[in-house]
Amino acid sequence: MTRRALLVGVGAAGGAGAMFAAMGALGLAPDSQRKDYVPPQPSDFTLSGRGAAKVVVLGGGVAGLTCAYELGKAGYDCTVLEAADRVGGRSLTVRGGDRLTETGGETQTAEFGEGIYFNAGPGRIAPWMVTMDYCRELGVPIETFVNNNASAYVYTRGMTAPARARTARADLYGYIAELLAKATDAGALNRRLTKDDRERLSEFLRRFGDLGPDLAYHGSTRRGFQTYPGVVDGVPTGSPPSLRDVLAAGTGRALTMDFGFEQAAPMFQPVGGMDAIVTALAREVGGDRIRTDTRVTGVRNLPDGVEVTHQGGTLRADYCIATLPPHLLARIPHNLGAGVTAALRAPVPVAAGKIGLEYGRRWWEIDDRIYGGITETDLDITHIWYPSYGYHSRGGLIVGYYNTDESAELYGRLSHRDRRSRALTQGKKIHGEKYRAELRSSVSIAWQHRPHIEGGWVRPSYGSSFTLLQQPAGRVYFAGDWLTHLVAWQAGAMESARRVVTHLHRRVLQAPA
Amino acid sequence: MTRRALLVGVGAAGGAGAMFAAMGALGLAPDSQRKDYVPPQPSDFTLSGRGAAKVVVLGGGVAGLTCAYELGKAGYDCTVLEAADRVGGRSLTVRGGDRLTETGGETQTAEFGEGIYFNAGPGRIAPWMVTMDYCRELGVPIETFVNNNASAYVYTRGMTAPARARTARADLYGYIAELLAKATDAGALNRRLTKDDRERLSEFLRRFGDLGPDLAYHGSTRRGFQTYPGVVDGVPTGSPPSLRDVLAAGTGRALTMDFGFEQAAPMFQPVGGMDAIVTALAREVGGDRIRTDTRVTGVRNLPDGVEVTHQGGTLRADYCIATLPPHLLARIPHNLGAGVTAALRAPVPVAAGKIGLEYGRRWWEIDDRIYGGITETDLDITHIWYPSYGYHSRGGLIVGYYNTDESAELYGRLSHRDRRSRALTQGKKIHGEKYRAELRSSVSIAWQHRPHIEGGWVRPSYGSSFTLLQQPAGRVYFAGDWLTHLVAWQAGAMESARRVVTHLHRRVLQAPA
Repeated sequence: MTRRALLVGVGAAGGAGAMFAAMGALGLAPDSQRKDYVPPQPSDFTLSGRGAAKVVVLGGGVAGLTCAYELGKAGYDCTVLEAADRVGGRSLTVRGGDRLTETGGETQTAEFGEGIYFNAGPGRIAPWMVTMDYCRELGVPIETFVNNNASAYVYTRGMTAPARARTARADLYGYIAELLAKATDAGALNRRLTKDDRERLSEFLRRFGDLGPDLAYHGSTRRGFQTYPGVVDGVPTGSPPSLRDVLAAGTGRALTMDFGFEQAAPMFQPVGGMDAIVTALAREVGGDRIRTDTRVTGVRNLPDGVEVTHQGGTLRADYCIATLPPHLLARIPHNLGAGVTAALRAPVPVAAGKIGLEYGRRWWEIDDRIYGGITETDLDITHIWYPSYGYHSRGGLIVGYYNTDESAELYGRLSHRDRRSRALTQGKKIHGEKYRAELRSSVSIAWQHRPHIEGGWVRPSYGSSFTLLQQPAGRVYFAGDWLTHLVAWQAGAMESARRVVTHLHRRVLQAPA
Repeated sequence: MTRRALLVGVGAAGGAGAMFAAMGALGLAPDSQRKDYVPPQPSDFTLSGRGAAKVVVLGGGVAGLTCAYELGKAGYDCTVLEAADRVGGRSLTVRGGDRLTETGGETQTAEFGEGIYFNAGPGRIAPWMVTMDYCRELGVPIETFVNNNASAYVYTRGMTAPARARTARADLYGYIAELLAKATDAGALNRRLTKDDRERLSEFLRRFGDLGPDLAYHGSTRRGFQTYPGVVDGVPTGSPPSLRDVLAAGTGRALTMDFGFEQAAPMFQPVGGMDAIVTALAREVGGDRIRTDTRVTGVRNLPDGVEVTHQGGTLRADYCIATLPPHLLARIPHNLGAGVTAALRAPVPVAAGKIGLEYGRRWWEIDDRIYGGITETDLDITHIWYPSYGYHSRGGLIVGYYNTDESAELYGRLSHRDRRSRALTQGKKIHGEKYRAELRSSVSIAWQHRPHIEGGWVRPSYGSSFTLLQQPAGRVYFAGDWLTHLVAWQAGAMESARRVVTHLHRRVLQAPA
């Protein structure tokens, strides 16, 4: 219905081709990749006289479920084998009562109160991503994920104390504007710019930096207020630090965080937890087609099909789609050849960790007027996420760290208790004693220690191994975010699934009837 | 409960005074004005042996309802007189079936479908505003209002075609960074900055502008993509225009729109329509204390009270709070003196207009991937707002213009039919023919023609008239956003109401028992 609505819309525009070509250069054209996808339809078989094939899907994460969903719509007989006791893979939303066991053996039980959840895996969706289309198609309600909050903090080791993002931004932009305005005024750009251009530039810079008539930055109400305007006029936050201190603070990374195409505002999340998407996919696939607690132990191409062995027995099918993380897939005995094994070993798993900190009082809203958003730091916690849901309710959950690589490995080596202690010590530097004192419960995840996953995501090598695994090895296909340029995004898993589904379906339709 | 929670939080921090003084300079301290407000309590009367007074409130807008709510909590006997047939004043949410009559005589009836609403007055709340506290206290659920969307458009007469905000921003920031980086590299800042500072500056500029190693801006994936990354890598949107064209486009106003303290992300709105706040206030005040369709015709100070005449008779009370717009208040016969009349005439009413355009298909989401946010233009429509609610639902409502001053006067002089036609002609320049072809219904408002209001807001004169009206004229108090530095915000009306309530209550408690 989504695709149809899109095509109807394009058709209604009339003479669309030429217009969209022209619009493309301006970034106006709708994203073409979504138009290109044509899901398999039951009618494809009715018309061709062929029957749908039997497909076994290894892994019930986003890629695997999307494959089974898309193939299932056309009547394919799919079976999803999932090693864990639940589907979703890294799309993991933790709620009160959930248990998390790590490969090291430690088990945590979430003690979160009613209505509190922790998106331990993916937590946000960019509007251009195909994930949004699945939310629409599956009826998963969405709401804004606040990815940028002027009231959140920035804290780096170059600063004496944390500052509000609005304050850091006003100061940095103010000085940048001043420097360029003065350089322009002093004639430094006379050779490159005409007088008119220089005037336009100066006008912009005055606005961009909130400069005074002397082209200097003297602070700005954009920094915030000690007392906001009301019946009496506001009392702005004190004077800006010196240019040298602003540069030394090193807030540039934090302030440009959302400039990229992956992070730009607005972003979105499913209402009630990210796992609403995998739950909806699994519902559409059908519980009878999904076998959890079923670890795969072997994959073999046969002359006329595939044979998958698992803890509970053997399964034969026409095709197989393997969606496990490549480093786990590489360990499973198979007859796909040494080249496949080598290619599967090329991507390097990346450690990633998060901690959910539950508080009984939403002090970030009440005390700090922070409603959603992210505090950026160069501490080993990297980020603090404030919840973009449950505003004004009784309690809430903060993500106390979301880190990768060395920092994630460091936290991952600790017990949950020590991770929490370290996260609280760091967060206290920004929020003070209440950060520790008011904590109610917590759950942490170290993705590199998550059974059947063993990594936050992988750093792919976009070389020959990437190309090799885009092709099926006999009757075995590979899918996952790791086979796309959207690694660590659900959209990557979905795009990869769509590609494999398209290729597999074309092959089935072209096979001798 | 809000205030109590806040005080508990401050108390829990321990040795708070000194800490907050220090934090104030960094923009860290919670906004102090909210701590300062102590609502009247029933116990104030129990303890002092005095009785609560009788108060007549003129106007059932945000200021009037807040006064009656706050006084009512302490047991005051309040009566609200409202000239219109509904409370809320400018906090007007239009739904299907609602009728709007203008002073010129034209009546529109909204034909919006189920679930569609149009915030014809205020539409967004900044998190620092007291409006948020009332939402919390009154149990009005809130959700994010998307005030800034990288996928929305910017369109000025200096541009050959609209561009996505992300594209315009990437180009402007890219060139700004290049100019300053090159000026720095050429030694233009050697006198002002040390070598270390210059290196830090260059590092920031490379990040800020996504510059190449040559310190030049060659475009960026931040501009967006013709095809977003997926299984294959993305195809970025074409090359940036020249520096001269970027400067001539004049997108600076649009791109800095949310830098100020009033507009910074995130912003919020009540779920289901802005009038949820006034509805909740009116519920707390009690329907029996609010008289709609009751136009005030006279206000007189008496030696021991006030006398208010209205269409239905006369009302006597101990005190009066007049919350009508000053230009309307000035027309009502009174015995408060010529100075008061002159002061009420000082603020100048400002024209403001909006149109709600209902569509049966959310083409801005499906075709353009715009989920909420605002397209900024220098056309006479000024802004186009996309809805921050009902994502992925069947239909939706766009605000096709939100303009003020000359543009609002221009639209205000037209019939609704002509306003719609003009708004569609302008919007088509950005969104193409579907903007007109797919329209289902529309409602427009010209606030200067709204009965009993006659203006979007006022341009206050913060001189002697402002000071005069902060004081009561005998037993008559004045309240409204026009008596604050938050004109045109509900928060202004609420802050003003709190001030008057505080003063009036102090006077009652200090009066001879």
